[in-house]
Amino acid sequence: MCSVIRRTKPVQLARALRFRVNSEGSCYAPADNRHVSPGLRCSALPLIPGLTAAGRAYCTRMARTEGLLFRQLFERESCTYTYLLADTETREAVLIDPVLETLNRDMKLVKELGLNLTVAVNTHCHADHITSTGLMKKQLFGLKSAICKHSGAAADVLLKEGDKITFGRHCLVARETPGHTDGCMTLVTGDESMAFTGDALLVRGCGRTDFQQGCSKKLYESVHSKIFTLPDSCLIYPAHDYQGQTVSTVGEERKFNPRLTKTLGEFVDIMNNLNLPRPNKIDVAVPANLVCGLHDV
Amino acid sequence: MCSVIRRTKPVQLARALRFRVNSEGSCYAPADNRHVSPGLRCSALPLIPGLTAAGRAYCTRMARTEGLLFRQLFERESCTYTYLLADTETREAVLIDPVLETLNRDMKLVKELGLNLTVAVNTHCHADHITSTGLMKKQLFGLKSAICKHSGAAADVLLKEGDKITFGRHCLVARETPGHTDGCMTLVTGDESMAFTGDALLVRGCGRTDFQQGCSKKLYESVHSKIFTLPDSCLIYPAHDYQGQTVSTVGEERKFNPRLTKTLGEFVDIMNNLNLPRPNKIDVAVPANLVCGLHDV
Repeated sequence: MCSVIRRTKPVQLARALRFRVNSEGSCYAPADNRHVSPGLRCSALPLIPGLTAAGRAYCTRMARTEGLLFRQLFERESCTYTYLLADTETREAVLIDPVLETLNRDMKLVKELGLNLTVAVNTHCHADHITSTGLMKKQLFGLKSAICKHSGAAADVLLKEGDKITFGRHCLVARETPGHTDGCMTLVTGDESMAFTGDALLVRGCGRTDFQQGCSKKLYESVHSKIFTLPDSCLIYPAHDYQGQTVSTVGEERKFNPRLTKTLGEFVDIMNNLNLPRPNKIDVAVPANLVCGLHDV
Repeated sequence: MCSVIRRTKPVQLARALRFRVNSEGSCYAPADNRHVSPGLRCSALPLIPGLTAAGRAYCTRMARTEGLLFRQLFERESCTYTYLLADTETREAVLIDPVLETLNRDMKLVKELGLNLTVAVNTHCHADHITSTGLMKKQLFGLKSAICKHSGAAADVLLKEGDKITFGRHCLVARETPGHTDGCMTLVTGDESMAFTGDALLVRGCGRTDFQQGCSKKLYESVHSKIFTLPDSCLIYPAHDYQGQTVSTVGEERKFNPRLTKTLGEFVDIMNNLNLPRPNKIDVAVPANLVCGLHDV
């Protein structure tokens, strides 16, 4: 196992059973209190700050993790977001969902910022673009690729629930969130202030479930049990956005997501009737992404 | 004058003449020490954190202004960034550079977040897209439009150097940064942690200077005197990016901007030889933007 990847105990969902104060000093209700059952919301704590007590500032400001360098990057053709996170002191860095077409841009930025990129991780085996992790490994000595063990893809590190990717004083904790594909993960920062949700949860949307082991019921359960249980203030950074939205929060998506605020039955109906075209690149991208993007490149 | 706009003393450039500690506890050298003359850099303080003392964390983490809601939004056709800033308690909000095509998205977000949008401000009279400020004013009672007085455009508030746009406990301070156009402004948050630079300074680039009163010498002076004098850790949020980059910092641009790290003479040569095509929308966008985007819409 790669030295930066550590096994931890499964996420302690029990801790969500009591009120607590998060790292930003905001009080929030545990998910088990808010969601009596999926699709039902307890209205005891309104989600919009400013309309409530000042201390309950949910869906608001940027992440404030001390000593964390963070960059969101965009690839216009596939509308994919790539994320760079690093420790500002040790310079250890992690790249999430890098895209082949923007390899040079990302490598240049890593170099300019003086970072030591140790892990390039994919949230899942993408169908709409080819990952750059394979080519990046050829250029950066010591770089490890990582992906969920249930993805079926090859990588240096195969992640499972609770595994940690550490970079300096920071870490990303893997939560398995299948449904879009069997091997989808959400990566959550150690302080639960940011979640990289891949295609499981998008801003006011979610990934499709009509190919690559897609299962709308699984996706619904993943989002409700693994993402909506995070603090309302936790920032949601998706793998894609097609409307120019860059970020959301757990609180916002719990309130405004047009699909995942529905009951399970309604959600399944919505997902079964999207009638989306087959992704252009799926026949090239999936085989390539099963081998770190090095297929035919 | 709009009640949220306040006149202040001109920016106290003299304060840049001594070392100081910024709001994040990072020590940085004043611009006048670093730049003995434009194009010459003093190497006394390296710009990359982690390669220096731990306390000098320049080009790194996200803005950490307490009680600030911040959203970066993107319009794909013109590659324009729109920025939403709000006070998390009072809910007063400001929108920077909103685009006609994304009016509905922006209005929906403002409503969902429970914000009271008081000012929609353009960093300049855009040539590549039409602003939505005019139509937005028709939908939001009390909303004021704002733009630099030197832009020649109509708006409720005509800003000049040092004017403040306040929203709750926060404010944006206008710095005139002509060069791309005569009426270009950079809007800087009160704590100098974020600068919305319009087309004056882009990530690793700058706005063109070959139309609409463009003047490369003016632009060079604007960037060096009004933006590069901000703390190195100040985040740069441009009006556009064509490479999927979302943010930079003053420190990074002072070190890596391929144009503005040159001497004035070299910069003028570069800008005189870009040979860019005429913007597609200039004949429609500029007349429309002179009247808040309400020309022929």
